[in-house]
Amino acid sequence: MIPRDKHDRMANAIRFLSMDAVEKAKSGHPGLPMGTADIATVLFTRFMTHDPKKPNWPDRDRFVLSAGHGSMLLYSLLYLLGYEDIDIDEIKNFRQLGSRTAGHPEYGHAAGIETTTGPLGQGLANSVGMALAECLLNARYGDELVDHYTYVLAGDGCLMEGISQEAIAFAGHLRLNKLIVMWDDNRISIDGPVSLADSTDQCERFAASGWNTLRADGHDPEAIASAIESARASDRPTLIAFRTTIGHGAPTKSGTAKAHGSPLGAEEIAGARKALGWDADPFVVPSDILDDWRLAGLRSAKERKEWEKRLAAADADTRAEFERRMRGDLPEAFTAVIDDYKKKLAGENPKVATRNASEMALEVINDCLSETIGGSADLTGSNNTRTSQLGTVEPGSFSGRYIHYGIREHGMAAAMNGMALHGGIIPYGGTFLTFSDYARPAMRLASLMGIRSIFVMTHDSIGLGEDGPTHQPVEHLAALRAIPNHNVLRPADAVEAAECWQIALESRKVPSTIALTRQKLEPVRTSYVEENLCARGAYELAPAGDDAAVTIFASGSEVEIAVEAKRQLDERGHPARVVSVPCFELFEEQSEDYREAILGQTPVRIAIEAGIRQGWDRFIGSDGVFIGMTGFGASGPAPDLYKHFGITAEAVVQAAEARLGETK
Amino acid sequence: MIPRDKHDRMANAIRFLSMDAVEKAKSGHPGLPMGTADIATVLFTRFMTHDPKKPNWPDRDRFVLSAGHGSMLLYSLLYLLGYEDIDIDEIKNFRQLGSRTAGHPEYGHAAGIETTTGPLGQGLANSVGMALAECLLNARYGDELVDHYTYVLAGDGCLMEGISQEAIAFAGHLRLNKLIVMWDDNRISIDGPVSLADSTDQCERFAASGWNTLRADGHDPEAIASAIESARASDRPTLIAFRTTIGHGAPTKSGTAKAHGSPLGAEEIAGARKALGWDADPFVVPSDILDDWRLAGLRSAKERKEWEKRLAAADADTRAEFERRMRGDLPEAFTAVIDDYKKKLAGENPKVATRNASEMALEVINDCLSETIGGSADLTGSNNTRTSQLGTVEPGSFSGRYIHYGIREHGMAAAMNGMALHGGIIPYGGTFLTFSDYARPAMRLASLMGIRSIFVMTHDSIGLGEDGPTHQPVEHLAALRAIPNHNVLRPADAVEAAECWQIALESRKVPSTIALTRQKLEPVRTSYVEENLCARGAYELAPAGDDAAVTIFASGSEVEIAVEAKRQLDERGHPARVVSVPCFELFEEQSEDYREAILGQTPVRIAIEAGIRQGWDRFIGSDGVFIGMTGFGASGPAPDLYKHFGITAEAVVQAAEARLGETK
Repeated sequence: MIPRDKHDRMANAIRFLSMDAVEKAKSGHPGLPMGTADIATVLFTRFMTHDPKKPNWPDRDRFVLSAGHGSMLLYSLLYLLGYEDIDIDEIKNFRQLGSRTAGHPEYGHAAGIETTTGPLGQGLANSVGMALAECLLNARYGDELVDHYTYVLAGDGCLMEGISQEAIAFAGHLRLNKLIVMWDDNRISIDGPVSLADSTDQCERFAASGWNTLRADGHDPEAIASAIESARASDRPTLIAFRTTIGHGAPTKSGTAKAHGSPLGAEEIAGARKALGWDADPFVVPSDILDDWRLAGLRSAKERKEWEKRLAAADADTRAEFERRMRGDLPEAFTAVIDDYKKKLAGENPKVATRNASEMALEVINDCLSETIGGSADLTGSNNTRTSQLGTVEPGSFSGRYIHYGIREHGMAAAMNGMALHGGIIPYGGTFLTFSDYARPAMRLASLMGIRSIFVMTHDSIGLGEDGPTHQPVEHLAALRAIPNHNVLRPADAVEAAECWQIALESRKVPSTIALTRQKLEPVRTSYVEENLCARGAYELAPAGDDAAVTIFASGSEVEIAVEAKRQLDERGHPARVVSVPCFELFEEQSEDYREAILGQTPVRIAIEAGIRQGWDRFIGSDGVFIGMTGFGASGPAPDLYKHFGITAEAVVQAAEARLGETK
Repeated sequence: MIPRDKHDRMANAIRFLSMDAVEKAKSGHPGLPMGTADIATVLFTRFMTHDPKKPNWPDRDRFVLSAGHGSMLLYSLLYLLGYEDIDIDEIKNFRQLGSRTAGHPEYGHAAGIETTTGPLGQGLANSVGMALAECLLNARYGDELVDHYTYVLAGDGCLMEGISQEAIAFAGHLRLNKLIVMWDDNRISIDGPVSLADSTDQCERFAASGWNTLRADGHDPEAIASAIESARASDRPTLIAFRTTIGHGAPTKSGTAKAHGSPLGAEEIAGARKALGWDADPFVVPSDILDDWRLAGLRSAKERKEWEKRLAAADADTRAEFERRMRGDLPEAFTAVIDDYKKKLAGENPKVATRNASEMALEVINDCLSETIGGSADLTGSNNTRTSQLGTVEPGSFSGRYIHYGIREHGMAAAMNGMALHGGIIPYGGTFLTFSDYARPAMRLASLMGIRSIFVMTHDSIGLGEDGPTHQPVEHLAALRAIPNHNVLRPADAVEAAECWQIALESRKVPSTIALTRQKLEPVRTSYVEENLCARGAYELAPAGDDAAVTIFASGSEVEIAVEAKRQLDERGHPARVVSVPCFELFEEQSEDYREAILGQTPVRIAIEAGIRQGWDRFIGSDGVFIGMTGFGASGPAPDLYKHFGITAEAVVQAAEARLGETK
């Protein structure tokens, strides 16, 4: 037990660093760090198992600040505990260009930032993935190597966002008992009292999904400690509703929205100094308090060393696999496995939907990689995400590798991010491409963080047919390509599907969306080529010789149309080349020479995609011909729709000849 | 009370129409219509106040099939009740191209379809908006003119989607007691039993947000009726958990996932005919049963006529306003009001952020229009969505016109759609542009339905500064422009903001996103022009004469940069024109002559936007110069970021001169 006055001074160090940094930046949110400093102090001085000197120790507890606007809480903690990445200058440069202390915590900016937060609810849902990763790895490697807690600090906004429901219902169902959510129940949001917009009894709500729920005074250290102890002992995930005062210590603004998202002002800070008995200058932490914090930072070093001994004592294969997985490396055999599979495909040339092609590739991949964890948002049979090796993950039982995420695309994507962040797991999960809209905020964060989440998006065009325009993606390929650092892969057949999966798995710092068809496609890659051609982004699938008149660019299901159009054009004396374009982003990474060669110099350039034109001008120029969609789809059998919307080889031939006529 | 055998035969009519239609289409979802036929029969024969002959009667009860995959339930009902749009041929053409009976219910395809559903949870959240619209209009026009219920049929998927939490917490808070959600508690989802993925006690969850909750046997007509009666009498919104068997009547597939989303097959249907004692041929409803249904369809004709009498008896002004609002017409004075305001602006040339400019325009608009209902997802002071006229909508008290939606962007957007669909209201609601990602599924549906929801999206670029990349939209303008039938309006100053608001309000069948800055901008439209130039999509803001060498296209906050670059280029002997591009979509609707004139023929074309390039090739060609973003933003003061990312007048001048050098 830590004496109360010492606790108070340690907590106040967080409060003043936060106030001072926000004040200097003239921007930021002092209210949350001030309100939750007591909770954080108890957590980090008595419970958190982590080591600032080895911040990436795999078996550390995770701490996630889901209420990311309160970033100064996290930065203060990291500084005080002795994380080298955050020194006092970083605190002073809060929210300045080039600093590690961005407005919201950014994964990768500094050790100790476990995930990027700010968009509310995401951190909470990431944490569910982290806690699930812990269970999955524990089931494989045992308590000796994997046994840690995931602590989350969430605000009212996190709990109001819909994603929170997906996350808590899922966590409650699976009984992720080492997940502990500490809710900063300060009853204040930006617009004013939470009661302006909400009357939910959060404990009752969490209990309805099987959570253990507790309430405690968030400013009473012993009550905080007792609640956390009780949570750690529970066989279910726990919500602790910590009643707090936002901006605790600010004489006139505490307990009001005025403390939420703006600097307090010099006068108010002076008042807080008086009220809390703090006489140090701005950004100065008295040395005795800093010592106490640094000692707290050393608490788990012994545990970490013991863990390292246990790892060293593990059998060699287990240790090697554990270490490889935590590094994020693929098994050495992987390349050969994919290559063998491509050779096998060349002999078979299966005519399958690419969603089936994806499943076939996964069958091979999941055999080779122990770290893949598959799943679907209740579309397993449609997304073809489950392979024969994958047992089901069940409540309290984590030896399987397949997850029924429920009808929760957003929660799935964010949980996948959490698993990827935790390490040791490569998560992939499926839904329909149109429902990427539901998952988009989490997909964007995967891109911003640069993590290996793989989104399997089937039913990727009007080719899904009868379900109609609500289910038919039209703008989604363009909208996903718009996200920076996100590979949108759209294979045209089984070979390309295998190559796209290889790319996704090998892209350690880029998340991928693999867009797949519902409908069967003709194979277009019928002979074996060792090189992963899809990794070029775009490549010449069928040449036309020096007298080429037309270049046809296409992706996915429209490549077979391009191939047929080429056949017809060749016959009619207009030699055409076909360029398959599985990935815009990878194409941009090629050399200028390569790109120019692929774009070519033919008088006519045509692109085909059963989506909107946006983005394709890069290939065909703004005067090129685009054969695709200009509005929403319709309900009907897929072949009818392709005809109705004019996405046919005949339309390509007609457009090409019209243009060739013009150019003559 | 309806005799049990008659009830059963009426309900079985729904079951067999659904089975037969799905079977003929070889596609669709028979399980839900079969499982909920009893609930629907009780609702429509005893409770629903509606008139198939006057389907748009404003004071009708609303019925929303949130579980839209069960569309055959709705189509069967509309046919049986006598809605003219759905005859037996439409039922036979279920899911065929050109039919009104699309795979999922599509708003606008047939009267009686109150909203487009299919993406799960959306219908439930729309219904909250509809029920809220009822309360708002009731507060203004009284029980005499507005007094109806909103009934929702929701499935497990609707309740698992995160949007459901936003919707129910919001509805419970506001005490929307005329909202009745009937949950088809069949415990089956596509992957199998719901227990694979969920263990939530839904009644407890709804109760936690202040709902009245009931449980009843969904196959017992009297239990169903009694539950609905009890719900209607509640002072809170009600969830009725109706325990049902999916595919009720199918001998081997009922109660399993096999009844969910595929045709049952001839044998199973034959078995159902035997089990349910139904010997009519496919698509044939015995005439006595059809008569009973048609009589049920006439139930409310008298009420409708009485309502019309009450409307006729209302005072002339009230009636005129009510009718105008329900038609969706703007007041006649509106155009003059905007025009006067533009004249006033020309005298003042305020240097304001466009979010403030939007607020100034709204101040004028909300005075003139009684039908606008504003709100924000807990960013009122940042979105500037609240004007002086708007009182707050409070629990049980609906005389205000401003809504605190809470931190619920998705629920807000879907509720706005529900209000727009209800009629009599023009909803607008605000959040940060980056969080359009959270609201995107609902925004897409607004576009698909063609309704007037107005999304106010502030903090529309890196110009928001310190909050950093999580909060800085980079790809969002492109991603929203990708959605068909969606006007993305990005004004450059106060005059353009007024014009964009005018466009949004006058676009009855197109939703709008108005993208607005956090930071102050120089006015660029300093003299009065009567024409709404923004309605052109793009227009020449500053000409350069016949010797123009450079055209600079820009939107929103980058127009001031374009103007400054033009000044510098002019000085340096390179006459430049500036084209302001507030709306891509409206530009495409202009005549070819106009578009060509705007694009112009200058040797160099440059576009500036603090977002990604995608889409801009339309203006500058694929070889044009784009000054904007290529990746995520950063945390720092806005001026530092503009410099850091090279979005400056100097960069434009440099790029222009480099190109002019090349072209010489």
